[in-house]
Amino acid sequence: MSRSLNFNAFGVDIHTGQTTIGVWAPSSKEVRVHVENGDVIDLKEAGFGFWSANTEKIKDGTLYKVALDQESALPDPASRFQPQGVHGYSQAIDLSKRNWSDQQWHNLALEDYLIYELHVGTFTSDGTFDGVVGKLDHLIELGVNAIEIMPVAQFPGERNWGYDGVFPFAVQASYGGPRALQRLVDACHRKGIAVILDVVYNHVGPEGNYLESYGPFFTDKYHTPWGKAINVDDAYCDGVRQFILENMRMWFRDFHIDALRLDAVHAIKDYGAKHILAAMREQLDELSAVSGKPYYLIGECDLNDVRYITPVNEGGYGLHAQWIDEFHHALRVTVGEPRNGYYADFEPLIHLAKSFRDGYVYDGTYSPHRKKTFGNKASEASGSQFVVFSQNHDQIGNRMLGERSSALYSEGLQKVMATAVLASPYIPMLFMGEEYGEKKPFLYFVSHTDEELAEAVRKGRRAEFKDFHGEEDAPDPMAVATYEQSKLNWSALDESNHREIFTFYKRLIQLRKKYEAWHRLDRKHINVEVCSDSGVLLL
Amino acid sequence: MSRSLNFNAFGVDIHTGQTTIGVWAPSSKEVRVHVENGDVIDLKEAGFGFWSANTEKIKDGTLYKVALDQESALPDPASRFQPQGVHGYSQAIDLSKRNWSDQQWHNLALEDYLIYELHVGTFTSDGTFDGVVGKLDHLIELGVNAIEIMPVAQFPGERNWGYDGVFPFAVQASYGGPRALQRLVDACHRKGIAVILDVVYNHVGPEGNYLESYGPFFTDKYHTPWGKAINVDDAYCDGVRQFILENMRMWFRDFHIDALRLDAVHAIKDYGAKHILAAMREQLDELSAVSGKPYYLIGECDLNDVRYITPVNEGGYGLHAQWIDEFHHALRVTVGEPRNGYYADFEPLIHLAKSFRDGYVYDGTYSPHRKKTFGNKASEASGSQFVVFSQNHDQIGNRMLGERSSALYSEGLQKVMATAVLASPYIPMLFMGEEYGEKKPFLYFVSHTDEELAEAVRKGRRAEFKDFHGEEDAPDPMAVATYEQSKLNWSALDESNHREIFTFYKRLIQLRKKYEAWHRLDRKHINVEVCSDSGVLLL
Repeated sequence: MSRSLNFNAFGVDIHTGQTTIGVWAPSSKEVRVHVENGDVIDLKEAGFGFWSANTEKIKDGTLYKVALDQESALPDPASRFQPQGVHGYSQAIDLSKRNWSDQQWHNLALEDYLIYELHVGTFTSDGTFDGVVGKLDHLIELGVNAIEIMPVAQFPGERNWGYDGVFPFAVQASYGGPRALQRLVDACHRKGIAVILDVVYNHVGPEGNYLESYGPFFTDKYHTPWGKAINVDDAYCDGVRQFILENMRMWFRDFHIDALRLDAVHAIKDYGAKHILAAMREQLDELSAVSGKPYYLIGECDLNDVRYITPVNEGGYGLHAQWIDEFHHALRVTVGEPRNGYYADFEPLIHLAKSFRDGYVYDGTYSPHRKKTFGNKASEASGSQFVVFSQNHDQIGNRMLGERSSALYSEGLQKVMATAVLASPYIPMLFMGEEYGEKKPFLYFVSHTDEELAEAVRKGRRAEFKDFHGEEDAPDPMAVATYEQSKLNWSALDESNHREIFTFYKRLIQLRKKYEAWHRLDRKHINVEVCSDSGVLLL
Repeated sequence: MSRSLNFNAFGVDIHTGQTTIGVWAPSSKEVRVHVENGDVIDLKEAGFGFWSANTEKIKDGTLYKVALDQESALPDPASRFQPQGVHGYSQAIDLSKRNWSDQQWHNLALEDYLIYELHVGTFTSDGTFDGVVGKLDHLIELGVNAIEIMPVAQFPGERNWGYDGVFPFAVQASYGGPRALQRLVDACHRKGIAVILDVVYNHVGPEGNYLESYGPFFTDKYHTPWGKAINVDDAYCDGVRQFILENMRMWFRDFHIDALRLDAVHAIKDYGAKHILAAMREQLDELSAVSGKPYYLIGECDLNDVRYITPVNEGGYGLHAQWIDEFHHALRVTVGEPRNGYYADFEPLIHLAKSFRDGYVYDGTYSPHRKKTFGNKASEASGSQFVVFSQNHDQIGNRMLGERSSALYSEGLQKVMATAVLASPYIPMLFMGEEYGEKKPFLYFVSHTDEELAEAVRKGRRAEFKDFHGEEDAPDPMAVATYEQSKLNWSALDESNHREIFTFYKRLIQLRKKYEAWHRLDRKHINVEVCSDSGVLLL
């Protein structure tokens, strides 16, 4: 009895003239799809907890819900579109309809990536994918060649960083939905820009999580900062793993995404014989073989464990690259950040030099802040396996007042930080607005529609910063003003001091592209010297 | 600031003329040792939560307790001896005192091991290590060359399988204590028998767990069948890891143990950059380099993940070998075991053949009982990396009535099972009494002194088997009779039918030793064929 699971239909899949619908509901005895017009479709059990049907009652644009065991109908966990928000009808979308114009596009080598992280909602006044399209020429002038889009999976309301997404297959309606994302990627590719999408496989948001109604998507074997862990190694995990794998395939296949940035992979707890990340890498390589295009997986990882970026056949989990927050922390204390919280672990200059040399600062050494020995050596990893930055959405937005570097440091220090990142033997990443010294904050904002939850988030946020600023100061994450305040002020680019910073960034990027020593990510050819007396670090 | 932890003193360490005492108590502000005669010793902080003192007030045999922050004095978590039980005084023991006579002994190659698992308390009527010494000639006559001793860490009362141990450094007093274990190992070595000790690093027992009073030995990041997991990767884990590593070193260094059997390594959850098992292996190799003797780590592992037995430098955790329960399950259903519970996953003959060929039966295939795809391939692993058996303490004792194979199967089938194990390309293991078809059961027994706990265990045991046998049938685990019933009846060896089985086992072992095809653990040279119609499996 050696059965294996090969059923990948999640949600509605529209081919030419035919629609398949698939639902994973391993505990249900009956699964029905309720179309908005009153039609009902009975699904048949297809084994391993999967239910499916071929139907002509669902077409591109049809609104529907799913009813389990004659309970109230719910949105489809694999919905491709939630035009009415997280609690409303799911809408069938034929993702194959787009006439792509990016046939000439070929993904860049990972080591050539110059990344620009952006949040769709606050990048332009529109707050949409089409708004982003309007700014691509600015990015080309700047010289970056890859945008990294913060998560776009449907979240409650219209204002969210994206990490509260609850429909991993549905592109946020207020950003323009799936077709608008396809348009953006197509436009990027025509202009020679790669697209990285930030995706969250370690938790789902607190409002609109219908996954739990469908099956054991979660396990209490492990605790994460968001509660129960996503079930990738407990009973019934095959369905969850297929859900994740199919979601990954969808982005590359149907949206032409070039790379995924995987949120907090350290919180994906997998003690099975094949780690879900390794399974993802294997499937990615299969996709690459079919399309003939390289694709990449980049993890956010807070473990300093080289296993995550080691090839699968060498016992690793096979990520192409990972973020390295320690470079950021070391850089920040070097330019004067007070050594509180996790910054307490970092020494100016010395640790920055360490990160330039070795990637991980803590690589088998005792971390006083973590109260344990931490990390292992990444000396054999290539420079292209690490993404570095002097600020990102988290480092800015997790400050109570969301101050960017421009609000904290002199222009001189901003330039020092930019140089440290863009002259590093790693993949550099900027955060939107950084390139012209945007002064507006990037605050923490949400728009939960569940009042109780909204109040809990408000309170939590106030409590988090109480010791530092007193209760009254924390901006209300639920307020529209908090969101509006966080939108970029593009008119700043017309002012000479901002223009000067922009010119500096442009020039640095030109230098990085021009000189081999700047863009060859081979750390063995880099010599790092520290002169502590004068505060100078020589590369 | 790159500090590292190099302090390994746990408990009392007596050198010539000097005694060091070390206590890990990272939250305490004051640590004192109270000697039974009224002397008090102040310990000094030594960094990283360690406290220590050199003293002349503690000598070989001194009774003492430890007081934290002027609370009631407690036994030492690293006590070497608890002569008054788990709640009593700890006793200082100079483990270096023994005059060892095993200088000629050199550990066997792992592939030559023929293991005999025994439980000290029920192996002889004495129930002591000295009792075991008296039976070594029987084992030599049988032909095995390694004994595996079920856990001996001090547990509550005098009757326990050993998995409720709470003092990992203290050898069970009722078995004879540490000096008697040294005598046993010495005697084994003089007779050419290796000694494997079963140790438990995944949990401690429910009574007498003073570890929690001393420091964060546990973490709630993970759930295990025993509740909170041992903290090997959370804050303060360095102290816990050193505790485990020093415990491992003690067995090899001070007791001349040849190999450790690590209980349920799948329940040791470690997401740090160096898995505790890999750290153990590295330290073991250092010990080997110093002593010039090979030592082995053998894990009980229920994950079918070859990572556990892959070398550390290839991304593995470095165990030399692991138990393989699936061989047992496949063998049992082949001889007629009803396919209930986990046996439901196994098919007669076909799965036994699979295990002969590949080790793991589920190696990336869907397991209906576990409700998930399970395992990876172990095809590159050597046969000497797997320990197989047709019964062991768990498989027998976890039956309500503790029946051995001899109470369940005909003599013919017992011989078939013995042949399957002893002709396998793996390391064979017998369970005490199996070699002569002992008819007495091996029951589950405990002797907790905490009445509430004892009653809870009683109830739990009854509930576990209620569906099968009705409440009244489950033997009382607390009853002395349950323990006495489980003791081997050596006089059976005088009866001809038992003698015949014994002769059969002897002969099989002789054949295994004589023929290269039987003892060469190279699975690539073995051809396994199944003839399902006739129920024949050809090797």
